[in-house]
Amino acid sequence: LLLGPLQAHAADPLPSWNEGEAKASIIAFVEQVTDTQSAAFVPAAQRIATFDNDGTLWVEQPMYTQLAFALDRVKALAPQRPEWKTQEPFAALLKGDTKGALAGGMEAVAKVLMATHAGMTTDEFDAIVSDWITTARHPVSGRPYTEMVYQPMLEVLDYLRANEFKVFIVSGGGIEFMRPWTEAVYGIPPEQVVGSSIETQFELRDGKGVLVRQPKVGFVDDKEGKPVAINLHIGQRPIAAFGNSDGDLQMLQYTMSGDGARFALYVHHTDAEREWAYDRESHVGKFDKGLDEAKAKGWTVVDMKSDWKTIYPPVK
Amino acid sequence: LLLGPLQAHAADPLPSWNEGEAKASIIAFVEQVTDTQSAAFVPAAQRIATFDNDGTLWVEQPMYTQLAFALDRVKALAPQRPEWKTQEPFAALLKGDTKGALAGGMEAVAKVLMATHAGMTTDEFDAIVSDWITTARHPVSGRPYTEMVYQPMLEVLDYLRANEFKVFIVSGGGIEFMRPWTEAVYGIPPEQVVGSSIETQFELRDGKGVLVRQPKVGFVDDKEGKPVAINLHIGQRPIAAFGNSDGDLQMLQYTMSGDGARFALYVHHTDAEREWAYDRESHVGKFDKGLDEAKAKGWTVVDMKSDWKTIYPPVK
Ligand SMILES: [Ca+2]
Ligand SMILES: [Ca+2]
Repeated sequence: LLLGPLQAHAADPLPSWNEGEAKASIIAFVEQVTDTQSAAFVPAAQRIATFDNDGTLWVEQPMYTQLAFALDRVKALAPQRPEWKTQEPFAALLKGDTKGALAGGMEAVAKVLMATHAGMTTDEFDAIVSDWITTARHPVSGRPYTEMVYQPMLEVLDYLRANEFKVFIVSGGGIEFMRPWTEAVYGIPPEQVVGSSIETQFELRDGKGVLVRQPKVGFVDDKEGKPVAINLHIGQRPIAAFGNSDGDLQMLQYTMSGDGARFALYVHHTDAEREWAYDRESHVGKFDKGLDEAKAKGWTVVDMKSDWKTIYPPVK
Repeated sequence: LLLGPLQAHAADPLPSWNEGEAKASIIAFVEQVTDTQSAAFVPAAQRIATFDNDGTLWVEQPMYTQLAFALDRVKALAPQRPEWKTQEPFAALLKGDTKGALAGGMEAVAKVLMATHAGMTTDEFDAIVSDWITTARHPVSGRPYTEMVYQPMLEVLDYLRANEFKVFIVSGGGIEFMRPWTEAVYGIPPEQVVGSSIETQFELRDGKGVLVRQPKVGFVDDKEGKPVAINLHIGQRPIAAFGNSDGDLQMLQYTMSGDGARFALYVHHTDAEREWAYDRESHVGKFDKGLDEAKAKGWTVVDMKSDWKTIYPPVK
């Protein structure tokens, strides 16, 4: 508005965002840190931005995509694992009783994850994920999961990169579950993807060096783990961070605790019609403490329903 | 030579390298993977190269630089730690008996490392390292450690980057000991530095998010750990790797086990006059199994004495 309608229209870097506080806050921050005349100027090498993935860049309802992957893998592997017919949570899953199987809580989920994510080499797992992600479909929309990404957030990624930011994913999801497709979908290369991981072990097999995925949790990239992983992988405090749940709160606190201009944004899922509406009481993407702190500190909270013109990219 | 003397001279990307097999092998590899007409062409996004640091990019004699840092820190901290006067290995160190102190082996070294590397925030440690690295001097040359880097290897870094490689450090040294100065010295930003680490813990101190360095080993980035860390931090198998000791062997094996054109290089310390000569029997930078495997497999082995015109950059 300040630039005049013509110029603003011509240069709008966030066309899927409605005019409003959220959109204006993103643009104001970027213009400030890239303006060499501003006291808030930040050199390009320090323009680090981190993004949560599930619920921030792509959909996490009706269940985490990686959990859908694991459940599909249980079905695919079942013929080689006849013992699963009588072992929970596998027996329930194979009968189609997902809810019953997951009633076992974190222990049941861990069994499913280890049975489906460990035992193979990293190259083999990459191929399994790459194959699944191109064929699996979201249960509600029927679209590939890689199209269940948020168009307004894709525009934020592009806008930041156009302004010489280096953008990273910092997700509670599996680092090797994301890397096979983040470059194609988000333009984020493997080395800029941070996530949870299981341990791997180096082996020589027929003289070839491979890494074998072990059934042992290595790192949980959630809550207090996010700043730890950011420091380990990136080695710089971000100047901007984007999340959607309490699992991102420490990442946003860490980001906002540095000197100079800082930006924190929470995506609030308020759109039951076009996406899902959930926050304080949700099992997936619980957003309670984070919402309070964002309000108290004046961080940007995106109201998905009113701030976003569109949710997903156009059907290809 | 094939290009004709004039053109070769004008374009020499490695002026501190004598003509010979080592130099020719580097150039042949880079020309091959960047030639779109070659069957060995590699897209820029996959041009990942990893470099060991100690003994490959900078000097590691008469002791690892990080150990020199730790010993200096013991002296600096001693006034606040009166109990060290009677506790080994600190008591011996404070009397100037480094050899006696380190006779306690890995346990003694671990005590010194934890006492000097843990207990502070990551920001505080960054400031301590930054301060030390600008003031400390190499005990033999009297030059800053940041000038005890290998000029021929700096040229390799530049040459690779000019050909759209992304170069990473993958070192057994501490990741947070390297990051404060690698950008200035090697042009390698913090997020492209991989190393050993101790655990950190997120805390809110007066409302500010900080990471506190814990006296607990997190990851040892040596031997089998190097491919594990490469996978975790980079997520791609390198197409070129550079090292100097048995601690790099698995990184080189992992690199050479991928498809397509690959390059592995070992720096062999053969120059007792201009630098140091050591290999199979050395405690620091032991180079025994790696030397055998490099010869057996035809990897490039740099004979420092004959391959390098100069060792260090000119005095500034
Ligand atoms: Ca999330
Ligand atoms: Ca070394």
